[in-house]
Amino acid sequence: MTVLEEDDCWQLLDTSSVARLAVLVGDDLEIFPINYVVDGRAIVFRTGEGTKLAAVTIARNVAMEIDGYHRARREAWSVVVKGTAERVEDFDEIYQTEELPLRSWSDHPKQWFVRLLPQQVTGRRFAVAGY
Amino acid sequence: MTVLEEDDCWQLLDTSSVARLAVLVGDDLEIFPINYVVDGRAIVFRTGEGTKLAAVTIARNVAMEIDGYHRARREAWSVVVKGTAERVEDFDEIYQTEELPLRSWSDHPKQWFVRLLPQQVTGRRFAVAGY
Repeated sequence: MTVLEEDDCWQLLDTSSVARLAVLVGDDLEIFPINYVVDGRAIVFRTGEGTKLAAVTIARNVAMEIDGYHRARREAWSVVVKGTAERVEDFDEIYQTEELPLRSWSDHPKQWFVRLLPQQVTGRRFAVAGY
Repeated sequence: MTVLEEDDCWQLLDTSSVARLAVLVGDDLEIFPINYVVDGRAIVFRTGEGTKLAAVTIARNVAMEIDGYHRARREAWSVVVKGTAERVEDFDEIYQTEELPLRSWSDHPKQWFVRLLPQQVTGRRFAVAGY
């Protein structure tokens, strides 16, 4: 197993668009796929009025993970971003955020933007026996 | 968005092998990929002595998610299993578990088996705007 440099983690974050987000709401652990973009050194994603937004804005801490597989090298990698999430409330901020190349994974109406402020970005790469 | 029947969720679980597992250890939310198999109505995966095992066995609750994309239908789906995780301690149980077609995603030595006992299995399917 190889620990990835933080810059390599950001490069992988930049070149991916689907992640899984884990949030804690009370005692309830939620996990769901998100479509995201990197904005500077933050992560931005859109969400609707439902469970996801409630979960993310109530949650103190969130953890986001992306992973992939390099078939030729028989290597998998995984990057985890831990931090806090906040709803983007300011209209100017939203306007700027609308400019981001953020496609929604679901075509369900999604009105809110959420910004994940990373406190820790870690990654690893490891050989894979079978996939 | 379509809510999936529990049987459909199990069929998707049966035909996948890589999931992401979210666990809470104290205030720390962990999320990582796992290679799993379905064993009856439980989920079994292997893990090493490191963070994963510690996280899973200390955690009260875990949430596991799989997802996929049906390109022709432009539909994505996501299945979440919530429950408790326990280390498989009994040797007979481990022997039976060794018979499962459980390939390790990583070839790092992994000595322990963990069984996730589902308390809730939910799934949804949704149209995708772009991927």
